[in-house]
Amino acid sequence: MNKGNLSSLFSPRTIALIGASGTPGKVGNIVLGYLERSGAQLFLVNPKGGEIGSRRVYPSPEDLPEKLDLAVITVGAEAAVTAAETCAQKGTAFVIIIAGGFGEVGGRGKSLEERLKALPERYGCRILGPNSLGVFFPESGLDTIFVEHGDRALAEGGGIAFITQSGSVGVESLGLASNAGFGMRAFVGTGNKADLNEHDFLDYFGADSGTSCLAFYLESIESGREFLEQAGAIAAKKPVVVLKAGRTAAGGAAVSSHTGRLAGSDNVVDGAFRQYGIQRAYDDEELCDAAKALSMVRPAAGNRVAVITPAGGFGVMCTDYIESPDRRANLTMAHLAPATVTRIRKVSLPFASAANPVDLTAGADDTMFLETLKALLEDDGVDIVICITFFAPPSISKDLPEKMATLIRKAEKPVLIFTQYGPFTAGYLKRFYELGVAGFSAIRRTVRAARFLVERGMILRLKEAKDEK
Amino acid sequence: MNKGNLSSLFSPRTIALIGASGTPGKVGNIVLGYLERSGAQLFLVNPKGGEIGSRRVYPSPEDLPEKLDLAVITVGAEAAVTAAETCAQKGTAFVIIIAGGFGEVGGRGKSLEERLKALPERYGCRILGPNSLGVFFPESGLDTIFVEHGDRALAEGGGIAFITQSGSVGVESLGLASNAGFGMRAFVGTGNKADLNEHDFLDYFGADSGTSCLAFYLESIESGREFLEQAGAIAAKKPVVVLKAGRTAAGGAAVSSHTGRLAGSDNVVDGAFRQYGIQRAYDDEELCDAAKALSMVRPAAGNRVAVITPAGGFGVMCTDYIESPDRRANLTMAHLAPATVTRIRKVSLPFASAANPVDLTAGADDTMFLETLKALLEDDGVDIVICITFFAPPSISKDLPEKMATLIRKAEKPVLIFTQYGPFTAGYLKRFYELGVAGFSAIRRTVRAARFLVERGMILRLKEAKDEK
Repeated sequence: MNKGNLSSLFSPRTIALIGASGTPGKVGNIVLGYLERSGAQLFLVNPKGGEIGSRRVYPSPEDLPEKLDLAVITVGAEAAVTAAETCAQKGTAFVIIIAGGFGEVGGRGKSLEERLKALPERYGCRILGPNSLGVFFPESGLDTIFVEHGDRALAEGGGIAFITQSGSVGVESLGLASNAGFGMRAFVGTGNKADLNEHDFLDYFGADSGTSCLAFYLESIESGREFLEQAGAIAAKKPVVVLKAGRTAAGGAAVSSHTGRLAGSDNVVDGAFRQYGIQRAYDDEELCDAAKALSMVRPAAGNRVAVITPAGGFGVMCTDYIESPDRRANLTMAHLAPATVTRIRKVSLPFASAANPVDLTAGADDTMFLETLKALLEDDGVDIVICITFFAPPSISKDLPEKMATLIRKAEKPVLIFTQYGPFTAGYLKRFYELGVAGFSAIRRTVRAARFLVERGMILRLKEAKDEK
Repeated sequence: MNKGNLSSLFSPRTIALIGASGTPGKVGNIVLGYLERSGAQLFLVNPKGGEIGSRRVYPSPEDLPEKLDLAVITVGAEAAVTAAETCAQKGTAFVIIIAGGFGEVGGRGKSLEERLKALPERYGCRILGPNSLGVFFPESGLDTIFVEHGDRALAEGGGIAFITQSGSVGVESLGLASNAGFGMRAFVGTGNKADLNEHDFLDYFGADSGTSCLAFYLESIESGREFLEQAGAIAAKKPVVVLKAGRTAAGGAAVSSHTGRLAGSDNVVDGAFRQYGIQRAYDDEELCDAAKALSMVRPAAGNRVAVITPAGGFGVMCTDYIESPDRRANLTMAHLAPATVTRIRKVSLPFASAANPVDLTAGADDTMFLETLKALLEDDGVDIVICITFFAPPSISKDLPEKMATLIRKAEKPVLIFTQYGPFTAGYLKRFYELGVAGFSAIRRTVRAARFLVERGMILRLKEAKDEK
């Protein structure tokens, strides 16, 4: 059995599509459309045989060649298991099963899932699913996700490996997140985890040089202790964020009816995550925001935050959030050095406030922004900077993102952007993203992203201290 | 002095623009462009005289007619005060002063503000500002907001009177909120509150039949006790939501440098709000979401929530949020009546879960959604329904919003929508909004909106109980 190398799952050269269909709207047709873009050699299977477009259709999986890299199975549960068995016998390396109706419905579904579980050991074939949307891997162009994910907003590549037990949570959340810029290395829907599970993907993406952050949506964790140790070891090198859903008793019950599994006690999960340096998210928005910040921005060396704003009110709200206690990491408003204050006074308007939060007022222009940012980055009392940027004030140019990005990319401290600009908000955030700068559209979300960077810094310093002992 | 009737501030028939400019990009030009759309008779003032377009320009406010409804003053602080004094002497009913550089900068600015404060008593002229973006009132088309507010995304009318001490917070937040549908009765930037303040707008919009909800962003409260009693009396009839910024010590200090005022102790504010039935928001996103929900959706008669989802994972996260304790209002997952479960089983797929959260699975179609919603609305154990809707699953039609809206508008229980759909998210939320249905793009925000409706129900029941005594 292939234990560690998932390369041909993510970048297969040969793919069988079992359930291929020529009828628009059918899952087997939608997936076919995406697979055709991957550049892999395709083998279609449908009992009707014949042709779809110009491609030959094999009537049965029995007719497939030996040793294919991947089989994507879109037919119903019963037929899917039979097809998977045939593929396994023929030496197919990976099988993705999209259909539900397995362990999560109990009874006959459970015994079907048992049949799948037998295949890896017996034939070495690895199985993703069942009840999985499968895989999306921008680098190779592999995409098995049949639900429309927001005009393929996920399509840009980046450093985040996103592994999700719920396909919908992954696709819908990432579709929205991607809209404002989100760099994805891989999307994996684990589904019922009959075989491949979080352990395999931790291993693979932990070692993958293209991955800068691992993000998990999990409803249950297989072999908890092992997961913690494995994730903890990876967290020493790259950030690992986990959203463990089903944290309340009722949520846990909902997990059970959704996946047929029991969720673990929440308090135990919380303490253990902390101990192992695994960062925790509480909903999909937070998971996506954390992954975005952690994959794009360096960790903070401390918790002292400086804020630049052209709008006093947002400076006040940002200060309130920064100073509010939080179990993730407490932040504090940085005390600026007198020299910094003097520098800011020199470049800003007479009405501006050069204390932290630095309120440049709506009269601010690009230069005031950039010079203030420079001054804050060079202040030893500042660990992280939040820039509140608006593009409505008349003296702020629309090129400010480019100008700021040049500074921010060179900076040795983390910088986060908050912006709002009506219907153009996502567009500006995406532009910042393309410039390598992480931005968010709500004050709360921006400060929360800062907490993740401060927490990440603490985790690394703790690991370092342990290693020195 | 005009004590209560602000009609000619919001729907003036005659407006003087002092600082009118023909130069594109200048504040006096931008505001002119907006004022021209209002249909009011305009009188332009600029020391240069001459004409702008085909309009005559008066060289001095002295040349203006007597008894105008409104003067909008866009010139700098010093000149603005002189102009305001002239307008007041000429019997102008309302003056809006946009310039900053008054009380918030201390020194000379403070004494300028004092001169403004003398005018209402002496001449009966009411002043909005200084340091105010002014007013936007969709019904009359009056718009004095010189910062671009997201392609005028605010332009649709509705029931929310939004009164904000920070113009930017109002404009930028509403620009974003409006993007997904937000019904605004009025936008008022109070600025430094030299004269008109939250008390005046409480009075006016409290009595205004076009207003269904009052939303305030405040950094300081004038005459706290009076405000509480006044707002409390209004809250007996329509919801009042207040975001009091500067709740931490550092936030309070930031308020002080921003507006030149001291913020009140946060704990006192919190307890007092609760006692008077005023609902509290903690950031601009929350304030906008609360106002949207409270202005569109009826209060909940209890705290038992039912959830419909086509995606198990979101059902789990929603359950976790519902069951998490919250200081606003604790929610609980409703226990469905056996008859309800049977009804749902009949209309849903065999793999669906008919317990709460009702997981219709990605195989759900429109009918399953609608029939389930009907069943939940008719269950006596359900007080409020959250519908998680996606438009990616193949059997969900793009017309589902229309079909759901018909049901939801007739319902005697509150219903909230959560949806995500990549770049189309805001578009779908806006469509729901136009159909009279309140939707949100994050689980956390949707559950929070539910808490505001439950809290509102509690406030009304408490008032009723008090009245019966």
